Amino acid sequence: MNPLYEVYPLHIENSLTGEKELFSPVLEGRVGMYVCGPTVYSDVHLGNARTFTSFDLIFRYLMHLGYSVRYVRNITDVGHLENDADSGEDKIAKKARLEALEPMEIVQRYTVDFHKVMGQLGALPPSIEPTATGHIVEQITMTQAILDKDWAYESNGSVYFDVNAYNNDGGDYGVLSGRKMDELQAGSRALDGQDEKRNPADFALWKKASPAHIMRWPSPWGDGFPGWHLECSAMSTKYLGDEFDIHGGGMDLKFPHHECEIAQNKACTNHNGARYWMHANMLTLNGKRMSKSTGNTILPGELFSGTNDQLIKAFHPSVVRFFMMQAHYSSVLDFSNEALLAAEKGHNKLLAAWNILQQASAKGGQGFDVQAWKDKCYGAMSDNFNSPILIAHLFEAVKFVNASEGGLAITAGDLKELQQSYKTMVFEILALQGVESQSAHKDALDKAMDLIIELRAQARTNKDWSTADLIRDQLNDAGIQLKDGSEGTTYSL
Amino acid sequence: MNPLYEVYPLHIENSLTGEKELFSPVLEGRVGMYVCGPTVYSDVHLGNARTFTSFDLIFRYLMHLGYSVRYVRNITDVGHLENDADSGEDKIAKKARLEALEPMEIVQRYTVDFHKVMGQLGALPPSIEPTATGHIVEQITMTQAILDKDWAYESNGSVYFDVNAYNNDGGDYGVLSGRKMDELQAGSRALDGQDEKRNPADFALWKKASPAHIMRWPSPWGDGFPGWHLECSAMSTKYLGDEFDIHGGGMDLKFPHHECEIAQNKACTNHNGARYWMHANMLTLNGKRMSKSTGNTILPGELFSGTNDQLIKAFHPSVVRFFMMQAHYSSVLDFSNEALLAAEKGHNKLLAAWNILQQASAKGGQGFDVQAWKDKCYGAMSDNFNSPILIAHLFEAVKFVNASEGGLAITAGDLKELQQSYKTMVFEILALQGVESQSAHKDALDKAMDLIIELRAQARTNKDWSTADLIRDQLNDAGIQLKDGSEGTTYSL
Repeated sequence: MNPLYEVYPLHIENSLTGEKELFSPVLEGRVGMYVCGPTVYSDVHLGNARTFTSFDLIFRYLMHLGYSVRYVRNITDVGHLENDADSGEDKIAKKARLEALEPMEIVQRYTVDFHKVMGQLGALPPSIEPTATGHIVEQITMTQAILDKDWAYESNGSVYFDVNAYNNDGGDYGVLSGRKMDELQAGSRALDGQDEKRNPADFALWKKASPAHIMRWPSPWGDGFPGWHLECSAMSTKYLGDEFDIHGGGMDLKFPHHECEIAQNKACTNHNGARYWMHANMLTLNGKRMSKSTGNTILPGELFSGTNDQLIKAFHPSVVRFFMMQAHYSSVLDFSNEALLAAEKGHNKLLAAWNILQQASAKGGQGFDVQAWKDKCYGAMSDNFNSPILIAHLFEAVKFVNASEGGLAITAGDLKELQQSYKTMVFEILALQGVESQSAHKDALDKAMDLIIELRAQARTNKDWSTADLIRDQLNDAGIQLKDGSEGTTYSL
Repeated sequence: MNPLYEVYPLHIENSLTGEKELFSPVLEGRVGMYVCGPTVYSDVHLGNARTFTSFDLIFRYLMHLGYSVRYVRNITDVGHLENDADSGEDKIAKKARLEALEPMEIVQRYTVDFHKVMGQLGALPPSIEPTATGHIVEQITMTQAILDKDWAYESNGSVYFDVNAYNNDGGDYGVLSGRKMDELQAGSRALDGQDEKRNPADFALWKKASPAHIMRWPSPWGDGFPGWHLECSAMSTKYLGDEFDIHGGGMDLKFPHHECEIAQNKACTNHNGARYWMHANMLTLNGKRMSKSTGNTILPGELFSGTNDQLIKAFHPSVVRFFMMQAHYSSVLDFSNEALLAAEKGHNKLLAAWNILQQASAKGGQGFDVQAWKDKCYGAMSDNFNSPILIAHLFEAVKFVNASEGGLAITAGDLKELQQSYKTMVFEILALQGVESQSAHKDALDKAMDLIIELRAQARTNKDWSTADLIRDQLNDAGIQLKDGSEGTTYSL
């Protein structure tokens, strides 16, 4: 049998060319994908969670198509924390190390939290999750290689990429963002270190650490830390090779981060890194940009628990995931109570139909063209991972399933095919979580106990002592205690 | 109020001195603790899971005593994987990177699994979880420092610690294990690289990578990788300072690993690293050493799922944790079905008593000396973390609680104190998991539904149609479906 990627050839919108292209991996049957991961110095924000959920969909679909995927998503753990005043690390008495702020404690806290949130959202762990601090040697090596080519220069203990020298030698800085050199030079902000640069558009490969800077490593240029853009070039090529298939990230990383990555890669390896660059779009909240300063923001954990004044209720992570999947990854998505409530309804409808479909029987006939439907589902996903179109097709099946009484009007073989494909799309690709969850059992138990308490009260009223005794004894056996109080009877385990 | 660590001063058995000593941290009120973590090249084995659960108990108790604890547990991710035959990394076409075995994929898989297992066992994440590959620069720096003192030498691209030179200059290699130099030299195994050493007891700080070795970094001595012992010296002192409080690990690490760590630390910082060295003991299974080759082995996940022929059933992770806590961390613990079943009974008894205690009322009197009991609980834990003695004291309270009808014979103030301390010891220190878990709800629901199905059958038999209708309607509302079959009535959500 041919692999699915041959049956449903994949097309990807490539930010580097601006075109939707037939996907053709470097190595037949294998995909190397790198996605810029979170900076773990605070809670992961919802926009990032959406980006990583989008790439989880992509990761899952690539694997489902039959590709062997190596998915690398990094953790940016190099922080820019400084010690108080001018004390500086080397002035801290070694004994007092435990009293000093330790960036890695912050990193650990938010990494654990990030993994928790992504797990709740049903995202698989990537194949490799490398850290920036774990690749200092590789970043120093890469900096040295660019210096050796004269496309970087040392200035006051820092090393900068020389954009003009690179472009004068045939480089194409600006290729991804489409910016021209004159715009770039005018547009640069007056950041720390501008006076050390030959050109405002130059960017740091290695930064000298001030005495107060906590995270620092020795290098040929003195104690310092890597520039922000370098880590992704170092880690993507280390694990995926000089030329790999897909590089993804949020839209906000396109410039300057990804532009700089391409220049660094090109300078070291003469490749752009990835062949296909993909960018996931942003979130808005109630039609406005999310922003901490205006309070127009929600954390993923707040969505799941309902603990944010802007929410009317909590939303299950699977509902939130479904909501995200209802928009294309490259479109802006607006969060609001209304939209989430609508998504919840759709989500539950999709799962309820699965419960019916699972137990349905086939009564024969041509009531639904299963093969054509299946082709449309794959067609949507193979067309640049179009999950909203996939969901629309799923609802066609829901309509058919819900309208059928006394068996589905298709053949037994088609029923099996419909069940299998529906299951694959809902649980494997969209990765929604079934209703057989902890809260489902708790909810059902609450309702079952309400009924038992009512039957017990009724038996007592009717002086039906044998039934009352039966209820008491069986609840005892079950370890369920009833407590009669002024506000009625409650139970506890 | 004085911190608890002043009320219940802690004593720790120090492997370095062989004595039980009053614990006195380097910095008042703060504890720096380092524990040698897992090597993530295969499933975490049960013995390691026990070691980390023991140190979780210790971490929790230290925090409860009021110490501010920085707990560092590393991940050993430097592997010794080699490529096939003599191909060698540098001979692999760069394009084919994706076809090559990538050690970090294995690392990721087993790290994720390790975190899952430790989470199931109720262990908190450590404060920092550094990786060996994330600290190559620090290890190279340390190797250079030891070379600079002439207590190490380079040989054929590798660097070895010179045990004789170190001891001749006043070093005390052997101080932890109590081994003498002549034993050490005789006892060394004929490992790779012995011909490069001046003395069989010397150990590698840096190893030259053979062409086939996959994990390799540039260094002043050529491409290679750090020796196994060095990572812990580099990471413990980086995050905790030259002299910190507690260093823990499994008994099997005492020699040579911890002996070498002490020598490395002493050579670089003139400190032993930690003041208190603690060693957790091993597991046996059915009285015999666990061993993969004889099949006498169980994985943590198999215990939780019951999927191992040697188990008669699955055991909840909280039961397994309780079972581990029933033995002192420094004693050998034997796993068997019988012992686990007994632990399950004790575990459930402890939790059932909590349900009663929570809802109990005080009828006054001196039926139980709560303050003396509380002191004994703390006394046990402050005496080298003696959890089995703590558990024995908890069962005294269980006996008192279970024997009381119509209220506990203590004052209301004592009841509050008893509830608070019981809760602290069971849920915060021993960290057992309450019965309000997913399976508890499912179990209770099963039993409640059995009862409802019986009451429904009874109503039908009695032609009590109003009760039968009530049951039908309320179950419908609850989304619970009944299905009458040849083997009785079942329900589904």
